[in-house]
Amino acid sequence: MLDKIAIFGVGLIGGSFALALKQAGAVRHVVGVGRSRASLERALELGIIDEIATSAAQAVAGADLVLLAAPVAQTENILRQIQPAIGPSTVITDAGSTKSDVVAAARRALGEKVAQFVPGHPIAGREMNGPDAALPQLYAGKKVVIAALPENSDQHVERVAAAWRRCGATIFRLSAERHDQVFAAVSHLPHFLAYALVDDIARKPNADQLFQYAASGFRDFTRIAGSSPEMWRDITLANRDAMLDELDAYIVQLQRMRAMLDAADGPGLEAVYANARHARENWIGAIEAGDKTPASKAIQENQQ
Amino acid sequence: MLDKIAIFGVGLIGGSFALALKQAGAVRHVVGVGRSRASLERALELGIIDEIATSAAQAVAGADLVLLAAPVAQTENILRQIQPAIGPSTVITDAGSTKSDVVAAARRALGEKVAQFVPGHPIAGREMNGPDAALPQLYAGKKVVIAALPENSDQHVERVAAAWRRCGATIFRLSAERHDQVFAAVSHLPHFLAYALVDDIARKPNADQLFQYAASGFRDFTRIAGSSPEMWRDITLANRDAMLDELDAYIVQLQRMRAMLDAADGPGLEAVYANARHARENWIGAIEAGDKTPASKAIQENQQ
Repeated sequence: MLDKIAIFGVGLIGGSFALALKQAGAVRHVVGVGRSRASLERALELGIIDEIATSAAQAVAGADLVLLAAPVAQTENILRQIQPAIGPSTVITDAGSTKSDVVAAARRALGEKVAQFVPGHPIAGREMNGPDAALPQLYAGKKVVIAALPENSDQHVERVAAAWRRCGATIFRLSAERHDQVFAAVSHLPHFLAYALVDDIARKPNADQLFQYAASGFRDFTRIAGSSPEMWRDITLANRDAMLDELDAYIVQLQRMRAMLDAADGPGLEAVYANARHARENWIGAIEAGDKTPASKAIQENQQ
Repeated sequence: MLDKIAIFGVGLIGGSFALALKQAGAVRHVVGVGRSRASLERALELGIIDEIATSAAQAVAGADLVLLAAPVAQTENILRQIQPAIGPSTVITDAGSTKSDVVAAARRALGEKVAQFVPGHPIAGREMNGPDAALPQLYAGKKVVIAALPENSDQHVERVAAAWRRCGATIFRLSAERHDQVFAAVSHLPHFLAYALVDDIARKPNADQLFQYAASGFRDFTRIAGSSPEMWRDITLANRDAMLDELDAYIVQLQRMRAMLDAADGPGLEAVYANARHARENWIGAIEAGDKTPASKAIQENQQ
C-alpha cells in the first residue's frame, strides 16, 4: 500500500494510473498537480485525485511515488522545480514515449537525486485526452517498459514496477537507448510514414479525387496519422538519432524494392511480400496466444 | 432482368455478384466456370450458380452478361477461349484491380469484339476467399469503377452498371489510365509500403524483440501486409508505371522530411503532421457524411 502518490498531469495517462491504483486498493492518498486548474478540479470531482496540490514542492513532500504524466517537453522544468523537495524515501517515475532524452533531462535537473528517478513508459493510450478520458482499466493487460538507471536501487525499481502491476500491466525492462531504438522501429517510424503518405496525397492537384477512392486498407494504414501533431513532433525530435537510423534503413529497403519493380522482378517482390506476411502472421499468432514474457526473459533483456 | 449470366471464378467476388443479383431477383439463370471442380460443385450446392458449364464457350453462348472474376493473370487466356462464342447480344465485364493491363489484354484477345468488353473494378473484399466466403451483401454501399472503352456503346455500359447497382453498389467512372493512377496512390503504394516495413523489421537481427513491443498502431498500419503475396505481386507488376511514379514521389517526400528531422526542424515536421491529420479528418468526415457522388459528377469524372 502506497501512503501518498503525486501525479503531475491528471489526464488520460496520469488519471488512469491513479484510478487503477485506487480501484486496486493500492494507494491511500492521491495529490494532483497541473497547469490547468479546470483539469485539476475535474479530476477531484471524478475522484481521480483526493487533493489539489498548493505547489509542486508540497505535492512531492512525503510522497512514496511521483508520476510525471505531463507533456514530455515539461519534464526537465518539473524535475527542477521539485528537486529540492524530494526526500530520501520518494521515488519518481515518468510515462514519456522516449527515454534517452528524459534520462538526460533528469540527470541535468536532479543531480545526485537522479538515483531516485526510475524512467518508465506505459504502452497504452486512447484517442481521447483529459481527466474524463481516464479509465481504471487502461493498463490492464498492457506492457510497461522500465528503463532503469545504473544508479537506481532494486527497491526503487520494484516500487515503480509493483505500482504498474497493480494497474494490471506486465513489466518489461530495456535500457533507455534500446527502448528508443525499438520504439523508433515499431512506433515512431510508422507514424512518420503514415503522416508522410497522407500529406503527400493531400498536396497533389487531384487530392479530392484520390481520397474519394481511398478505402478501408488506406483507413487502417493511416489511422496513426490522426495522432496529435504536437506530440509527434516532440517524440520524433526527442528520438531523432534512432529515427534517422530507422528511416535510412527503410529508404534503402524502398530503393531495393523499387529496383525489383522497375525490373518487373515478380519472384523478388513476391518473396518480400510473402516474408512480410509470414512475419506478421507469426506476430499476430504470438499476440493471440497471450504472449507473456516471463520474468527471467525480462531480466535478460535488461542486459541488452 | 438478366436471362443468363456466366461467372468465371465462383469465389468471393464472382460468387457475391451472383448471390446479390439472385437476391435482388435480377437474374434468371447463373452458369459457373472455373478451374477448380470442387469450387464449382460447392457453388452449385450453395445456390450461387444454377449450372456448371461444360465448356467456356457453352457458358458464354446466349449470356446477357459475363463476369470475369478469376485471377487477373488468367484474363487474356479466358478472353481468347471465349472470343469465338461471344454473340452480338453478350456484354463482358471483369473485376480486376488494375485496368490498363486488362484493356490491353482484351484488345489483343477480342479484336473487334472488344466493343462488347466493359472493364470494371468493384472496390470491395474480405480476408477470406472461395465460394463459402461469398455474401449477397458484399457490394452494398460499395463503389464500383467502370473504365468504359471508347468502343463501348452506352447500352452495354449501362447493362454492366445496372447489374452492379442491383448489387447495392454506386457506380463511378474513370478512364483506365486514371483508374490505375488513383489506385496506385491510395491502395497499391500503401500495400507496398506496409510489406516493405514488415519485411525490413523481420530481417533485423533483433526482430523478435522489435515485434514484442509492436502495438495497435503497428497492427493497423501493417494490416494490409497480411494480403495475398501472389495477388499483390500481380497487381504491382500490372500497374508498374503508375506505381513507380507514386513510389518516386513518396521517396522524395521522405527525403524532404528526413532533412527536417536531421535539422531538428520542429515547425516543419509539425506542419506536415498537422496537414496530414487535417486532410485525413476531412476525408473521414466525408465518408461519415455518407459521401455519395451524384451521377452528374460521375459523368464529369469520366472526362478526366
